[in-house]
Amino acid sequence: MSDERYFSVVEPRPDAAVALRPVTQGRVRGGFWGARQRVNREVTIPLGGERVGGSGAFDNLRLAGRGAGGGHEHRGKVFADSDVYKWLEALAWERGRAGGDDLARSYEEASELVAAAQCDDGYLHTHTQLTGRARYSDLASSHELYCAGHLMQAAVAGRRATGDDTLLRVAARFADHLVKDLPPDALDGHPEVELGLAELYRETGVRSYLDLAARMVATRGRSLIQLKGHHGPGYRQDAVPVREATTVEGHAVRAMYLAAGATDVAAETPDPELLAALERQWRDMVATKTYLTGGLGSNWYGEAFGGHLELAPDTAYCETCAAIGSVQWSWRMLLATGAAEYADLMERTLHNAVLPGVSLGGDRFFYVNALRVRAGADPDDLRSPARGRQDWYGTACCPPNVMRLLSSLDHYLATQDTDGVQLHLYAPGTIRAGSVLLEVETDYPWSGRIEIVVRETPDRAWTLSARIPAWADTAEVSLAGAALSSGVGAAGSSGAGAAGVGDRPVEPGYHRIRRTWRPGDRVVLDLGIRPRLTAAVPRLDVARGQVAVERGPLVYCLEQADHPGAVIDDLCVAGADLRDGAPITGLPAEVVPVLARGRVHVHGEDDGGFPYRSAAPREPEHAGPADLTFVPYYAWANRGPGAMTVWAPMHEE
Amino acid sequence: MSDERYFSVVEPRPDAAVALRPVTQGRVRGGFWGARQRVNREVTIPLGGERVGGSGAFDNLRLAGRGAGGGHEHRGKVFADSDVYKWLEALAWERGRAGGDDLARSYEEASELVAAAQCDDGYLHTHTQLTGRARYSDLASSHELYCAGHLMQAAVAGRRATGDDTLLRVAARFADHLVKDLPPDALDGHPEVELGLAELYRETGVRSYLDLAARMVATRGRSLIQLKGHHGPGYRQDAVPVREATTVEGHAVRAMYLAAGATDVAAETPDPELLAALERQWRDMVATKTYLTGGLGSNWYGEAFGGHLELAPDTAYCETCAAIGSVQWSWRMLLATGAAEYADLMERTLHNAVLPGVSLGGDRFFYVNALRVRAGADPDDLRSPARGRQDWYGTACCPPNVMRLLSSLDHYLATQDTDGVQLHLYAPGTIRAGSVLLEVETDYPWSGRIEIVVRETPDRAWTLSARIPAWADTAEVSLAGAALSSGVGAAGSSGAGAAGVGDRPVEPGYHRIRRTWRPGDRVVLDLGIRPRLTAAVPRLDVARGQVAVERGPLVYCLEQADHPGAVIDDLCVAGADLRDGAPITGLPAEVVPVLARGRVHVHGEDDGGFPYRSAAPREPEHAGPADLTFVPYYAWANRGPGAMTVWAPMHEE
Repeated sequence: MSDERYFSVVEPRPDAAVALRPVTQGRVRGGFWGARQRVNREVTIPLGGERVGGSGAFDNLRLAGRGAGGGHEHRGKVFADSDVYKWLEALAWERGRAGGDDLARSYEEASELVAAAQCDDGYLHTHTQLTGRARYSDLASSHELYCAGHLMQAAVAGRRATGDDTLLRVAARFADHLVKDLPPDALDGHPEVELGLAELYRETGVRSYLDLAARMVATRGRSLIQLKGHHGPGYRQDAVPVREATTVEGHAVRAMYLAAGATDVAAETPDPELLAALERQWRDMVATKTYLTGGLGSNWYGEAFGGHLELAPDTAYCETCAAIGSVQWSWRMLLATGAAEYADLMERTLHNAVLPGVSLGGDRFFYVNALRVRAGADPDDLRSPARGRQDWYGTACCPPNVMRLLSSLDHYLATQDTDGVQLHLYAPGTIRAGSVLLEVETDYPWSGRIEIVVRETPDRAWTLSARIPAWADTAEVSLAGAALSSGVGAAGSSGAGAAGVGDRPVEPGYHRIRRTWRPGDRVVLDLGIRPRLTAAVPRLDVARGQVAVERGPLVYCLEQADHPGAVIDDLCVAGADLRDGAPITGLPAEVVPVLARGRVHVHGEDDGGFPYRSAAPREPEHAGPADLTFVPYYAWANRGPGAMTVWAPMHEE
Repeated sequence: MSDERYFSVVEPRPDAAVALRPVTQGRVRGGFWGARQRVNREVTIPLGGERVGGSGAFDNLRLAGRGAGGGHEHRGKVFADSDVYKWLEALAWERGRAGGDDLARSYEEASELVAAAQCDDGYLHTHTQLTGRARYSDLASSHELYCAGHLMQAAVAGRRATGDDTLLRVAARFADHLVKDLPPDALDGHPEVELGLAELYRETGVRSYLDLAARMVATRGRSLIQLKGHHGPGYRQDAVPVREATTVEGHAVRAMYLAAGATDVAAETPDPELLAALERQWRDMVATKTYLTGGLGSNWYGEAFGGHLELAPDTAYCETCAAIGSVQWSWRMLLATGAAEYADLMERTLHNAVLPGVSLGGDRFFYVNALRVRAGADPDDLRSPARGRQDWYGTACCPPNVMRLLSSLDHYLATQDTDGVQLHLYAPGTIRAGSVLLEVETDYPWSGRIEIVVRETPDRAWTLSARIPAWADTAEVSLAGAALSSGVGAAGSSGAGAAGVGDRPVEPGYHRIRRTWRPGDRVVLDLGIRPRLTAAVPRLDVARGQVAVERGPLVYCLEQADHPGAVIDDLCVAGADLRDGAPITGLPAEVVPVLARGRVHVHGEDDGGFPYRSAAPREPEHAGPADLTFVPYYAWANRGPGAMTVWAPMHEE
C-alpha cells in the first residue's frame, strides 16, 4: 500500500475547527459504486472530452491562448470554461484513483490549453477575453468567478491526485490577481469561487485566498448584486447575509455551492457563529425543501428552491448539479460537526438524486430529476424527463459534475479523528487512516450485511464507528461472529454480549466500538435491508394519501416499462407486504426490484371531462388486483422514456 | 332605449359559421359585477393611465412621434406599446358602456400619440423604431405583431363603442402594411395579431386582414420561429400545427390568444375542420390542464402549461392574462358551437381566475394566482403571491387586461340566434336582442335566484334559453310564479306543469322555454346555491385526500386572516355539513363566507426533521374541533398577505 498516493477532495488545514478529518485514503473496489466508477472512467469521462470539445470550449481556450482580444466569437455559454475545468477535475481524481496513462495525455493537453489562455496578470475567462466585455462589469451573469472557482478545484485535484502543478500555477496566479485587483464588493451571481479559494488556501497555505473567500461570504446578502429579469435578490443568495439566514433560497445549485464554501470558511477561519447559521439552514432545508430522493429545487423557474414544503413531484426540478452541491455541503458539515445526519443525507442524495443523473451505460444524462413523469408530460424542453435521457445539454453543467463526483467518491467513505475511524458510506474496498487499514466487504445496498476487517492496527485502543442509517429499523452488530448488539431505537433488544463491548442497542447514528484491535478482527454489521413503505408528514399536501417504496438507501419507483398497458397513475399500493423480486430483463442482474400487491383505479367518473367532481363518493372504485414492480429510482429511464412515479396512492384492502 | 349604442367585443360577419351571435346589447346594472365595473371605472382605469405613463410607454410614443430613429432609449419592455393599447381598449368599452367625458380626454390624447408615432408606411412599434433594430428581424421576442394585435383590438373597440375612428385608421394602415410587406412565413413569438386582424376584418370588411390571420394560423406549428433559451418550439405554439394539435401547450397566454384567433378564423373563413381541432384542444385543456379555479399554467418556467394533470396548487402560475385569454377563447367557441360547456368554463374562470387578479379596491394586482400559499412561501419574485398584491408590475400585461375585460363584460352575458335569446352569465341588467328586451334581477352569485322579465317582445313564439351551470345539483324554473320544471339530472323530479312548458327536468346545459311571450312575463330560475365539497379525480395526485369548498360559481379558500394562530396547512375538513356564515369584517358585507367543522392536525411525528417517515401509522392524530371559515378565492389577500389554501385535507369523523 505504501506506493499509493494519499489525498482527498477536501483537506482541512491542521488548525481548522473540524470534528472529523479525511482518512488518508478511502478506496472503492468493485460493488455498487465500483461499477459506476468503472463506467464513469471507461465511458463517461472520454465521452465528456468529446462533448466538451464539440461545444467549442477548447476552441475558446485556443483562441484566447493566441491572444485574441475583443470582438471574437465565443462558442457556447458564458460559463463554457467551467465545463472544461470540471472535466479536468474528474480526470485528475480518476488518475489518482486508478492511474492510467490513457487519461494523462487528455489531462495534460487540456491543462496546457488552459495555461496558455491565461492573461499576463492572471485573469482567465474566455468569454470576457474573446468578446472584449470589461472584466467584472456584469458579474450578476458573467460567471467569471464561478469559472475561476472550478479552475481552482480542478487545480487542487491535479496537484493532490497526480502531483501535476500545471493548473495549480494557473489557479494561484488567478487567485493572486483576484486578491489584488477584484473590487471590494464584487460578488459573482453564481457562487462557487468561495469553495475554490478555500481549497486553494488549504493546498497552498496562502491565507489571503481564505480571506477573500471569507470576505465574499460576509459581503453576500446585502443586495449588492445587480438584479436581472424578474428574479429578486434571493435568486442569487443576495437577500439575506449567510450569517443571518435561516433557510436556503433561490437557485439551488448556487445555494449549495455558497453554503459549502461558507462551511469551509467557518471551519478554517474558524467561525463557530457562521457554522451555527449553516447548521440552521441545513436543518431547514432538510425539513422543508428536500424531496424524498434528496433532490433539491421545486421550481424550473430560476432552477430554484420553492417555498416551505413546495415539493410537487411532477414539476420538481431536482437538478443533478444541486444534488452534487448538496453532497459537497453535507460532507463539509460532517467534517465540521461529526453528526450522522449529514452522512444520512449524503447517502440518500448520492443514491437517489446524483446517480439518476447518468444512465447505467454512462452515456446519457438527466438534468432534471422529477419524482413523477406522466404519459402526457410536456416534453417541449430538452431538460424535460419526459423526453428521456439526453446525450448532452446546451448548458452542460451536470454531466461533468457527475464525472468529478464519481471519480472522487472514494474520498467520502470514511473519516478519522484522534479517537479512531468513522465509516459513513458502505462500499467494498479499503480505508487507510494512518496506521489503521480496514477492509470492507459488502454487497451494499442490495444487501445490508457489511463486514469490516481490521487489516492493520496500532497496538492501542481506538474506536471504530460505523454509521447506522436513520432509515434502518433493525440493525445487528457482531464481532468475530459473536453478537455485540442488536435492535434499533425503541426495539432496542440487545444481542448477546460480545468481546469488548457491553450490551446496548444499535441505534441510528454511529455505533461505536472501542477496543484494542488485532489484525483479522472482523465487525459484521447487518442493517437488515428489506423493502419498506414511506409516507410524508401530513403538511406535505402533494403526497397526501400516497406512499413511496424504499429499500435500504434506495428510493424506488413505478416505471412504465414494467407495467405495459397500465396507466402508472392509476396504480395503487394495496398493502404493506412488499418483497424482493427476481432480476429484470434490461436492468443489470444485481438490481433487486420490489414487488407489491396493488390495485388499479377504475375511473368510473373520469369521462375525460373537468377533473373536479362532487366530493361524494370520494373513494375510487377498484378493479381486480395488479402486480406492482418497483425499481430503484436511479435506474429508471434506462429502458427508454416513459411514465414513472415515486409516490403511489395507498389503498389497504 | 333607442339612443343607446349597440356593440360587442366580438361581432361575427353575417356570413360567419356561428351558432350564436352577440345580442344587440347586454348591460350590467349593479350587483356583483356592477360593483367590480364601478371600481374598474373609478379607480383602476384612471390608475392604469398613471402607471402606464409612469412606465414610459407614452414617452416612447412621443419620441417616435417626433420621428426619432435608431439609437434612442426605449423605456420599459419591448411590448410597452401593448399596455397603452389595452388601456385604450378599456377606455373605449367603458365610454361606450357608461359614457363619460372624463374618460374622453384621456382616450383622445393617447390615441393622438399613437397616431403620431405611426411610420409613413403604416408600421408602428416604438421599441423597434427607437432602437433602430430591423423590423421583423427578431419576431421570436420582439412582440411587434403582438402589439399590432392589441392596437387592432383597441381600434375596433374605439370605433364600435364611441364611433371614434382615430385608432381604426392607424390600425387599418398598419394592417395594410402587414398584408403588403410582412414576409410570408413571419410569425410573432407571441400570438395576438390573429385576433386583432380577424376583428379588424369584421369591422372593416377588408378580407385580406382575415386572410393574413388565416395564413398565420396555418403557418404556425412548423418550427419556423427561432428558438431562444431552453424553450422548445412548443413554448411559442410552434411545434404542432393548430389543425393537428390535440392539446394546448407552452406559454399559456400565447396559447389562449392563438386559440381565440384561430377560432375567429375558423368561424369566418369558415373552416369546420379547424373548429373541430380547436374543440378537441379545448376539451383536453379542460380535462387535463385546468385548475379548479379555471386558472391555466402550472409552471412559472415559461409561464406555461405543464403536462397532463400537472396541477400542483402551490407552484401554480395561473397568470391573470391566461385566464382572460381563456375567457376570450371560450366565448368564441360558444358563439361557434352554442355548447354550454364553454359558458360554464367562462363563468368559472371569470369568478375565480380573472377576478382574483385585481383587489377589491381596484388598485392592487396579482399576476400569479396560486391555489396554495404557505407561511414560508418564497417571496423572492415580485410576482409571488406570498408577497401579496402589488401596485403594478414591470411586465404590466395583466392589470390593463383586467381593465378591458371588466369594461366589456356586458358583451358576454347573452347571445341570440334565429330562434331566440340565450342567457349565459347572470347579472342584474338588461339584454336587448332585436325587438326583445329582457330585464334580469338577481343577487347572483350570492343567491341562486334569477328573475328574467320580458319587457319587450315581438308577437310570435321564440325561445328563451337560460344556462343551468354544470355545478348546479338542484335547479327550479317557474314562470309568473308557477313551477315550470325542477330538479337536475338524476334528481329529475319535475315540478308542477306550468304555462307554455311541459313537465321535464331542469338539467345542466340550457333550459329552453319556447312560447309567445308577453311583456311582463317573468321567468324565475332558482339554482339552489349552497356550499358544497369538491374533490379531484384520483389521477390528480396532488389533490388526493383533499377537498375544496365551492358555492355557486365561486371557489372558496381558507385564508390566514380568518384563522389567527393556526397553520393553514394543519386544518382539515371534518364533515360535509357546510353552512353560510355572517359577513366578515374587512370584506364587503355582501360576501358570504362558508363555515365548516374542522380538525387541526397534530404533528406528533413532525419534529421539524426530514418530512418522510415510515408509512405506519399513516393517519395524523387530531386535536379538538376547529371552526373553519372559507372565503371566496377571488377576495383573498385583501386583508394583507398571508397563507391561503383552496385544497384542504378531508377527515370525516
